[in-house]
Amino acid sequence: MIVNGRSLRPLVSAPDMMSIDIIDQRLLPHRLQLARLATAAEVFTAIRDMWLRGAPLIGAAAAFGVALAMREDSRDAALDRAVATLAEARPTAVNLAWALRRMHDRLEGLAPGLRASAAWREAEALAEEDVAINAAIGGHGLAIFRELLARKPAGQPLKVLTHCNAGWLATVDWGTATAPIYQAHAAGLPVEVWVDETRPRNQGASLTAWELAQAGVPHRVIADNAGGHLMQHGEVDVVIVGCDRVTARGDVCNKIGTYLKALAAHDNGVPFYVAMPTPTLDRSLHDGLREIPIEERSAREVTHIAGLSAQGDVVEVRLTPEASGAANPAFDVTPARLVTALITEHGVVPATAEGIARLPQATAP
Amino acid sequence: MIVNGRSLRPLVSAPDMMSIDIIDQRLLPHRLQLARLATAAEVFTAIRDMWLRGAPLIGAAAAFGVALAMREDSRDAALDRAVATLAEARPTAVNLAWALRRMHDRLEGLAPGLRASAAWREAEALAEEDVAINAAIGGHGLAIFRELLARKPAGQPLKVLTHCNAGWLATVDWGTATAPIYQAHAAGLPVEVWVDETRPRNQGASLTAWELAQAGVPHRVIADNAGGHLMQHGEVDVVIVGCDRVTARGDVCNKIGTYLKALAAHDNGVPFYVAMPTPTLDRSLHDGLREIPIEERSAREVTHIAGLSAQGDVVEVRLTPEASGAANPAFDVTPARLVTALITEHGVVPATAEGIARLPQATAP
Repeated sequence: MIVNGRSLRPLVSAPDMMSIDIIDQRLLPHRLQLARLATAAEVFTAIRDMWLRGAPLIGAAAAFGVALAMREDSRDAALDRAVATLAEARPTAVNLAWALRRMHDRLEGLAPGLRASAAWREAEALAEEDVAINAAIGGHGLAIFRELLARKPAGQPLKVLTHCNAGWLATVDWGTATAPIYQAHAAGLPVEVWVDETRPRNQGASLTAWELAQAGVPHRVIADNAGGHLMQHGEVDVVIVGCDRVTARGDVCNKIGTYLKALAAHDNGVPFYVAMPTPTLDRSLHDGLREIPIEERSAREVTHIAGLSAQGDVVEVRLTPEASGAANPAFDVTPARLVTALITEHGVVPATAEGIARLPQATAP
Repeated sequence: MIVNGRSLRPLVSAPDMMSIDIIDQRLLPHRLQLARLATAAEVFTAIRDMWLRGAPLIGAAAAFGVALAMREDSRDAALDRAVATLAEARPTAVNLAWALRRMHDRLEGLAPGLRASAAWREAEALAEEDVAINAAIGGHGLAIFRELLARKPAGQPLKVLTHCNAGWLATVDWGTATAPIYQAHAAGLPVEVWVDETRPRNQGASLTAWELAQAGVPHRVIADNAGGHLMQHGEVDVVIVGCDRVTARGDVCNKIGTYLKALAAHDNGVPFYVAMPTPTLDRSLHDGLREIPIEERSAREVTHIAGLSAQGDVVEVRLTPEASGAANPAFDVTPARLVTALITEHGVVPATAEGIARLPQATAP
């Protein structure tokens, strides 16, 4: 993607294989600042504390984390330790486990002396595959968008609602849910995006809105409460979201609040698509509601919020009474019955056990 | 209600009939400050700019606004003007129109010289009736809560979810949706409340949470996105909300986002109750989705937010990129099919044309 006129990715690996540069997403949309991560411990902190987030980007960053660990110590115990530690950074995103397993599988059979450079190459390959996956998702989603547009009166824009940030910033490039939006915009199709602000961390208001503004895609931020009303009044043609984990029968774990939008889409006959790179598929799980562990994050994400003051400083303020506690489940599960289809890099499949069984296994080395 | 150990209401009329004192709700939960309103123009501003809000409280304040107008000029034209002007302060709440019509009906037949004191007495009567209505709603709701509690294992609390502030601060006393909660708490029943923060104006996080904390009712604030997930996991026994307008067939207009919670309650078999004082009923409307005008408020309510800084100042910060716009519909309509029942001062009735037809007309003078 182009940011301030130059090409940028949210994760850029250094040519000397000693570090990666990432966009510190905690500072967006108010400040664009890169952070250099040179050790596995720094990568762990960056994932845990959400300097970067988004299931695909977490997976790629963790792969580089293993590679950086191998530069320090490439013995078997160190490899096992790096993989085990990085896996703890975020509990929900299956890409993290997938990327670490792939790194482990690739490296365990190699002599320790060969591991550091092989790990780096594998992490780079994984990152490039993510870009290719998202570009393919964009193509398949674009075909759906074209079809939906064809049903509207000529000249009217396609109104897309998205939740959270399954955008360029959540991946190595393109985004998942945003890939069809960017491809449609690039193809000159009229698209307008409703951006759920996505409380409590406001990834929509701060990240998706920022991305879309950089790309010049028309969009408006809305409170998470507003989407149902907009759908009732014909203001949403299609919902598209990303995912953190999808089960073998098509239940979708994604950012908290996704389920409410899926219910509203279902109630109003609005198609509800999930952009799903196959590494996000977890074939070991079936009933998403019962089987997917949901991360409970700090109450402070609900009780406090940061923003830009009139003086231009990023200031954190408290929103709730001092005496009031808060709860903060970070994800929810949308049952497969509410999902119109999954848009994968291999094409569009129904969110059913049969549809998912048709997909090839995600590539292993 | 008791605040900081003393009895208080969000609207207190002065014994000299020259002014009303209201809690300036814009400063809560961080500061409790009263504002004195001595003219109809000041009442208009206070309603429009949401120093006070909540359909019943708006109705009572507008009635006092008419009374204050009559002190300045009690001729027919002035009465008509006061009623017409105050009606414009907020477009959605039907209580506002109801209270103004009631004041007009009461005063138009009187000689101008008698109007000022008669208006004051009528406004006070209307305010006291609101208290009685809410106490009665509390009693009927309490019976439902007792029944729901009886179905739970002994000792387990009843988990109630509410949206926005249909509380003590939205009425002259008790609140509507909160009245059963306060009565249950006073009766020693174990109740725990999930408080939707209610973006974009955060009436839940700032007003409902503050009220419940003052009253010592256990509660936790949650992002508006979280309620569906909590219902999926059995963490919500009942939803109860207020309303700004209800149609003759039971469609419920309430704070934006209510519809999404009703969908989730329906999907999970959680009872969804609407606390409805009969003055909030608009028998002239049927299809709420098509007929109720929805107030579109300033985009700034979405793009900016105020909170308490670490230094103890109330600071407004920007949440979104400068280049991003926002949309801000303030209410939505929950179709009657999603409402378990309406809890009114006359008892509990189904949200159907038949159920509503059984209710007596709201009192007129």
